[in-house]
Amino acid sequence: MPFKIYVDLDMPAGALELLQSGTRGHQLVFPHKPISSVLDSPGVDPQFAAVDIAFGQPDPKAVAGATHLKWIHVSSSGITRYDTPGFRALMAERKIPVTNSAEVYHEACAVHVLSFMLAQARNLPSALQSRAANGTPEWLALRGSSTTLRDQTILILGFGAIGKRLVELLKPFHVKVLAYRRKARGDEGVPVITPEQLAQTLANVADHIVNILPDNEESRHFFNASRLATLKPGAVFYNIGRGTTVEQDALLDALRSNRLKAAWLDVTDPEPLPANQPLLNQPNCHITPHLAGGHVDEAKTLVRHFLNNFERFAAGQPLLDRVM
Amino acid sequence: MPFKIYVDLDMPAGALELLQSGTRGHQLVFPHKPISSVLDSPGVDPQFAAVDIAFGQPDPKAVAGATHLKWIHVSSSGITRYDTPGFRALMAERKIPVTNSAEVYHEACAVHVLSFMLAQARNLPSALQSRAANGTPEWLALRGSSTTLRDQTILILGFGAIGKRLVELLKPFHVKVLAYRRKARGDEGVPVITPEQLAQTLANVADHIVNILPDNEESRHFFNASRLATLKPGAVFYNIGRGTTVEQDALLDALRSNRLKAAWLDVTDPEPLPANQPLLNQPNCHITPHLAGGHVDEAKTLVRHFLNNFERFAAGQPLLDRVM
Repeated sequence: MPFKIYVDLDMPAGALELLQSGTRGHQLVFPHKPISSVLDSPGVDPQFAAVDIAFGQPDPKAVAGATHLKWIHVSSSGITRYDTPGFRALMAERKIPVTNSAEVYHEACAVHVLSFMLAQARNLPSALQSRAANGTPEWLALRGSSTTLRDQTILILGFGAIGKRLVELLKPFHVKVLAYRRKARGDEGVPVITPEQLAQTLANVADHIVNILPDNEESRHFFNASRLATLKPGAVFYNIGRGTTVEQDALLDALRSNRLKAAWLDVTDPEPLPANQPLLNQPNCHITPHLAGGHVDEAKTLVRHFLNNFERFAAGQPLLDRVM
Repeated sequence: MPFKIYVDLDMPAGALELLQSGTRGHQLVFPHKPISSVLDSPGVDPQFAAVDIAFGQPDPKAVAGATHLKWIHVSSSGITRYDTPGFRALMAERKIPVTNSAEVYHEACAVHVLSFMLAQARNLPSALQSRAANGTPEWLALRGSSTTLRDQTILILGFGAIGKRLVELLKPFHVKVLAYRRKARGDEGVPVITPEQLAQTLANVADHIVNILPDNEESRHFFNASRLATLKPGAVFYNIGRGTTVEQDALLDALRSNRLKAAWLDVTDPEPLPANQPLLNQPNCHITPHLAGGHVDEAKTLVRHFLNNFERFAAGQPLLDRVM
């Protein structure tokens, strides 16, 4: 049976050809104006009502009216716009599986956050600006505050595919990794702390806090002023989840007071930050503009992942990266 | 039998106490003006003639006159000033073992070079300056040129303790690592290429060239204009060995023409570079001022390593990190 597949993704030619050849015999439906970012909201497309499958970032409001819809494959790792009790209930009632593209991005995201951790460990932001001579106080200070991460403790919040890959990358470093996630599954490979242990872990144990929390009602401003005020002095904070999980004014305070040694953010609220946002000029705050998941040939990886799942969908097999 | 140990190192109090307590019953001899850098040349100290052991950076010219000398423990990983045929012959004739402190620095050096590799892979120098909005050409270019290192080939020249540790750190990345060293020992854990294979490997295979060559007559300007002109287009060059192994004008040309995508240097010639050296303003050249081996409590690690060896020396056991 041929499927109508709605694709609202702006793809380079190579990726589009891959998608076309992998879905031969089925019908691809494109919106008149494709979106190019997961944060866009293009509004409801009337064509959507007749499709079987949605690949991309379909408007959640359009789903209720799409009576033929059988599967949604989200082209991002984050599923913020779908992660509401109402949408979850609708998907459950209509038996529509929702999958995401975590597998496409988790590798690059894990490497990105490790690049942050090592840049911090080796003082790269100041070291790359310095021409200090051997033996000078500036040089001794830079050398003496460099680390190898050895024996440090890293807490990963919102532990999932990215966290798992990060654990693999960190394995040779002789660090201690702890995980925090909504529901422990037992396959984390590192100790999972409970909500009851979180305050104590943040206050006394975690030298590095890797925030990969998704955006949802529970996680919004998870790192608020009171939580940030309890972090272990000298800890480093990383955010590659969603900007909304952090109260940015409170983060600024924690950085200004040097309670936090540094923050490394790939996500902010909004994106990009307006030019007058003081975090942009805070010397111990380092920001990349939502690049963590990016990698050469990303669009092709995305299409390949969809096609893997499409094959499984057509054969009635369990889907990869199912989130609902 | 109490030993006279000559120590020409500028140490913080904690490290000095450690050294004193670990050598109780022996005599520590300090120069009147301690050196603070491996690149200083303090000249011959008359006290040196009577010592049994030298820990630090003893003047090679002083060694001939030190008729009691039984062991030299160099406080750096590099042994440039000792690595001459004349000095080697003298040590062999006098049966004086020379050890270095490779073990102290190899971990930090390997982490430092990996921080360079990941900063390059994730475009950190430009990404940290960018406020590109999602979906803009600048953003797409940054994302699309980011990598995870996967499937890339890394050639390590001057493969030793640092290279070995780097191989361990790179293990989870799914990269191919090749080694090049003066004498293959069979314990490298990665393929060792021969001098005959080097040209071909540099021209067609190596995406990342990690230069850890020591400074000696053979290695001086190893990366000269003709060799740099043959590198695989788009390769990235890292130097954490010694600045003298690279012809810097030729490196500049390779960077200006974009034959090399980027260079990451922790060592230069001289150090620091004079303000008018054009590499300092070359956008794809990234320089840290000889910090790779640095780490918190470095002086204590150095002393602990010496004391380990001192215990072995006193017991007539084989020494660690022996280089002559």
